[in-house]
Amino acid sequence: MAEERRLNRRLMIGDQKMSNDPCARLFDLSSHNPSFFSVQESLPDTDLLDFCIPVNLHFPPPALVHSIHERLDEILRYYPDYASTHQAHIAELTGLDPTTIVPCNGSTEIITRLCQQATGPILTSVPTFSRWTDLPDELHVPLHTIQRNRERQFRLDVSEIVSRVREVRARTLVISNPNNPTGAWLSGGEVQSLASSLGDLDAVIIDESFIDFSDLESVGPAVRNFSNLVVVKSLGKSLGWHGVRLGYAVAESSRAEALRAQLPFWNINGLAAYVLKNVMRYKSEYRASFAAVAADRRYMTERLACIEQLTIYPSKANFLFAELPAGTSGRALRNQLLERHGVMVRECSNKIGSSEQYIRLAVQRPKAVEALVDALRVETT
Amino acid sequence: MAEERRLNRRLMIGDQKMSNDPCARLFDLSSHNPSFFSVQESLPDTDLLDFCIPVNLHFPPPALVHSIHERLDEILRYYPDYASTHQAHIAELTGLDPTTIVPCNGSTEIITRLCQQATGPILTSVPTFSRWTDLPDELHVPLHTIQRNRERQFRLDVSEIVSRVREVRARTLVISNPNNPTGAWLSGGEVQSLASSLGDLDAVIIDESFIDFSDLESVGPAVRNFSNLVVVKSLGKSLGWHGVRLGYAVAESSRAEALRAQLPFWNINGLAAYVLKNVMRYKSEYRASFAAVAADRRYMTERLACIEQLTIYPSKANFLFAELPAGTSGRALRNQLLERHGVMVRECSNKIGSSEQYIRLAVQRPKAVEALVDALRVETT
Repeated sequence: MAEERRLNRRLMIGDQKMSNDPCARLFDLSSHNPSFFSVQESLPDTDLLDFCIPVNLHFPPPALVHSIHERLDEILRYYPDYASTHQAHIAELTGLDPTTIVPCNGSTEIITRLCQQATGPILTSVPTFSRWTDLPDELHVPLHTIQRNRERQFRLDVSEIVSRVREVRARTLVISNPNNPTGAWLSGGEVQSLASSLGDLDAVIIDESFIDFSDLESVGPAVRNFSNLVVVKSLGKSLGWHGVRLGYAVAESSRAEALRAQLPFWNINGLAAYVLKNVMRYKSEYRASFAAVAADRRYMTERLACIEQLTIYPSKANFLFAELPAGTSGRALRNQLLERHGVMVRECSNKIGSSEQYIRLAVQRPKAVEALVDALRVETT
Repeated sequence: MAEERRLNRRLMIGDQKMSNDPCARLFDLSSHNPSFFSVQESLPDTDLLDFCIPVNLHFPPPALVHSIHERLDEILRYYPDYASTHQAHIAELTGLDPTTIVPCNGSTEIITRLCQQATGPILTSVPTFSRWTDLPDELHVPLHTIQRNRERQFRLDVSEIVSRVREVRARTLVISNPNNPTGAWLSGGEVQSLASSLGDLDAVIIDESFIDFSDLESVGPAVRNFSNLVVVKSLGKSLGWHGVRLGYAVAESSRAEALRAQLPFWNINGLAAYVLKNVMRYKSEYRASFAAVAADRRYMTERLACIEQLTIYPSKANFLFAELPAGTSGRALRNQLLERHGVMVRECSNKIGSSEQYIRLAVQRPKAVEALVDALRVETT
């Protein structure tokens, strides 16, 4: 099933490669999106409105940015600190035991390492963040999937995940919570129940990269009780700066120590280290920014609900998963939105378990949402 | 031999752990130095003069820094570019074939990966950058060393390296050129002759992290001719910003492709990507900065030569290797320089193949050199 979907995906992309359409060529990537910079450069006269990259638009606060400007040379001149310093800062921010923390150069660094060390089949729910499906493929680790279905608003329940783990004899389970790109979720209790049922696996990995935008509690503290539980967390999304490259994993202390030993020294750059060290001084602004994103999400959900041709699914993340009418081409819509309106969206046909009937829309401020609604009205009717 | 030295080193450091001296505790690291930030924080009232971190003090130019200030949010907001973009920029900067380039999050990222994939004994010359000796140790890869000797100003010749490779049946050779911390070097012709004699090894790795400060030519283009040659290059030292985390490896195209596939996506942060993309606009300033460092090195060498108690060895890097009289404690000198003069130097007893008779002094501007000379005059007589 998964193999078939992947083959289909490749064939579609293969076809796309033949295209003479410059927009299609720009998006001719096997699973991720082109970088914002490459899109911007190819459309130099367009002021892009970005619904593609899910980033916290209410952070960092001006005072933190100002302090960086004041100290830029000092921040960058010297080697950054060692892991133990970053562990202490992440512990201060999260309340986690510092010995359970593995600081990393964006969550992708630890995702790469976790996939490289997987010794048996991996099961992940789809659609999901493409690194979780592409890496096993590249590394020749058997990959199995569990499909999230529109009929159930892309939600899964614990028993079906456990059954599927047993069916495919998975040694590693990966669930992103809230899920990317659907925004669907498991409760903290459900995740703990999952970990409890799967204590014999090599790893139960919960990717909580978008959890700050939800009302869900992190299961990070539960690594005390489940020695195979690994929580993965991006901080770039929460801090509002993807380019800063900062994330961490949480695991039982000895596993965390082993993971840290596999990562390079000085993997956290000086600017990321500075932001991490100082974000505690802006903790109330940090929390308030997540509430502001949640308010933006509610507004955006309501406004998009007015467009009859779209189905918007419930989301606890800072993006919405939108379904187009059957037979509508998401790729064509994406290209029209970009070329005619300067609006950039994430079309999802190059994700396993999705199709070009789906687009992911990053939560934006109300004014931008109005521009999106106007553009969608023109292009979907 | 190497094992004995390592044991001695550990015992020494073990003893140091017992110390109540706050300065000794600060430097209680198994092989590297404490971060500049941790030293600065422990001495809040001291304006530190840094001879510890070898960084280009004549770069980046104000115009580049200004352009970063103007675009900081844009630089950090989005995911950085993919490797292919960085390969193109590094190729533009160096003239190398982009397919042979592996961009990395500081040279340490690729050093870590190269050591993790070594399948047989590694031979390296000592003293050297400690990651090249510590990583094999941590990863249980057999490590052998070839000692650089004071009598020959720490230089090696090709035939003795080749003999030692054969003697210990090494599968990987690592030479840093110019060598860190001694500043000694092999000519480009000698390196090519080495690669030519060792075509049967898994890898001949040349760490050229400090080559920009020398008049030596990189052997990067020679990867065309030697499929097992891997050149490692830090860019932070050259760009004047260690904290930016940027480096690359050069290898024959198919090996480079395999290495890139093992590194995480988005491993180059947004700020590093911006600097890399724009440094070409400042290429004359970039080159002039290396000439300025070389002039500073000449001045510093002459001034330190006036201190009878010091022997300064010839160096082509942006640091000098200084020998203290037999029986003098480099650790005590380091602590006195720091506590009494706010002068921070790199004492080298925690490097395999070195001893506390040696300190490494990063090249500084003439005014700072005068302060160092004054402090050394007080503390060494």
